[in-house]
Amino acid sequence: MREEATAFVPGHITGFFSTHPDDDPTKAGSRGAGLTLTDGVEVTVEPATESTVELDGESIEIDPVTTVLETLDAPARVEAEADLPIGAGFGVSGAMALGTAVAANHVFERKLSRNELVTIAHGAEVQAGTGLGDVVAQAQGGIPIRLEPGCPQVNKLDAIPARARVEYVTFGELSTADVLAGDTDQLSMAGKTALSRIVEEPTLLSLMYASRQFAREAELLTSDVAETIEDVAAADGQASMAMLGETVFALGTGLSDAGYEPSVCATHPAGAVLK
Amino acid sequence: MREEATAFVPGHITGFFSTHPDDDPTKAGSRGAGLTLTDGVEVTVEPATESTVELDGESIEIDPVTTVLETLDAPARVEAEADLPIGAGFGVSGAMALGTAVAANHVFERKLSRNELVTIAHGAEVQAGTGLGDVVAQAQGGIPIRLEPGCPQVNKLDAIPARARVEYVTFGELSTADVLAGDTDQLSMAGKTALSRIVEEPTLLSLMYASRQFAREAELLTSDVAETIEDVAAADGQASMAMLGETVFALGTGLSDAGYEPSVCATHPAGAVLK
Repeated sequence: MREEATAFVPGHITGFFSTHPDDDPTKAGSRGAGLTLTDGVEVTVEPATESTVELDGESIEIDPVTTVLETLDAPARVEAEADLPIGAGFGVSGAMALGTAVAANHVFERKLSRNELVTIAHGAEVQAGTGLGDVVAQAQGGIPIRLEPGCPQVNKLDAIPARARVEYVTFGELSTADVLAGDTDQLSMAGKTALSRIVEEPTLLSLMYASRQFAREAELLTSDVAETIEDVAAADGQASMAMLGETVFALGTGLSDAGYEPSVCATHPAGAVLK
Repeated sequence: MREEATAFVPGHITGFFSTHPDDDPTKAGSRGAGLTLTDGVEVTVEPATESTVELDGESIEIDPVTTVLETLDAPARVEAEADLPIGAGFGVSGAMALGTAVAANHVFERKLSRNELVTIAHGAEVQAGTGLGDVVAQAQGGIPIRLEPGCPQVNKLDAIPARARVEYVTFGELSTADVLAGDTDQLSMAGKTALSRIVEEPTLLSLMYASRQFAREAELLTSDVAETIEDVAAADGQASMAMLGETVFALGTGLSDAGYEPSVCATHPAGAVLK
């Protein structure tokens, strides 16, 4: 057993999605597309007699992380440092689950493969209702297109072969669990239309168009978000809403050009990695 | 149309493999496992009236690159800078094919997805007989396990969730095309045994054991290579032979510890990326 290990997991902004429930959490998930980010979460795992989880120095309960530790039979102290706010559409819970799986596998020498670790983290996240597609996207990196839902044994991924500078501003939290617990028919219909568009033209610009159309059709826009997206459009920029958070993300200098003071990062070429 | 674009593609050392021919080059390929490397190939594509290819400033004919340019209807000047020798088991031809596909797609705005570009480069490489599994591995990055052969539409990939410093020395070239044109039954049998081992225990150490056993059973070891691997073992290190080249690679400081003056790099977390 090693003393400790640290994994970095990129943040993930979902531009649009459709939900795909299944009794088996490793088969459930979402289709959709989004951006993984150089802003992410660093997760350090150290064996302990009792499992505890801290995020940015504060004790926190994150069900998917607890589930991952139990599945790996790995009682540990988990310390996470996030560049990103939780609950604002950046996949922080997914990053914590996946980072815990990758780091705990290393520390406890569990000898699992990448796909097995992704499956454990994805299943834990789906079971907790905190996300449906972040984990598989964060394992791949880049600009993932999720063509088929679920863990790596059953899903199908593609990607937009591009990179971009990314800006974002956050106005507050939206509960993924609450949205997913509501009626998702209209949302999933909009998500399927958006996915067809991206499959036909897998470019960054088409991702932004499809994401904006999805946000409108799924009726998820808040007034702050809608106004900011309009401001960016007025400055000839490309912005949309992060699913699910009260967050606007833009390509290049979209938000700066519109007079905002955004956080700045970029798409992250790699998926989750041990440091 | 853009003026030019540059892609970086990691080198790829195959530790073991089995061949899987198919009349359709996008379905043909290999199973196996190996390491992608921070030493790789940078490929710059610039539109031109007639296609030309240069590697490290020298004009060169590389069939897979020509095929990729033709498939993308992208006459271009291709300039590649390689950290690695060609023909020595580092997947330089695969890197050039994939890098050309990714950069040309960007320059000529062909709007293809990542999987489509990988399929084009993989098919071109298989058709030319210069490689069977490098392209799909180089598109993924990390330490890929190729569970099922072929392009992304049909293959199945996993990975060893680890990172490593990698050292290598090269004694000369081996022709992949010549080996693949010979009787590959014994080789493929050894490759399947090695893959079972890795699937059961997907760790770096198990990759090195399986690779050494494969090199012996497939009868591909040259005397220089065999001697060097023994020297590293005598210094308690882990080394094996790059398939297919007269190259020895080692984890950590394996070759240095044995008194060699190796090139030094590391596993590359990401697959091919636009710069």
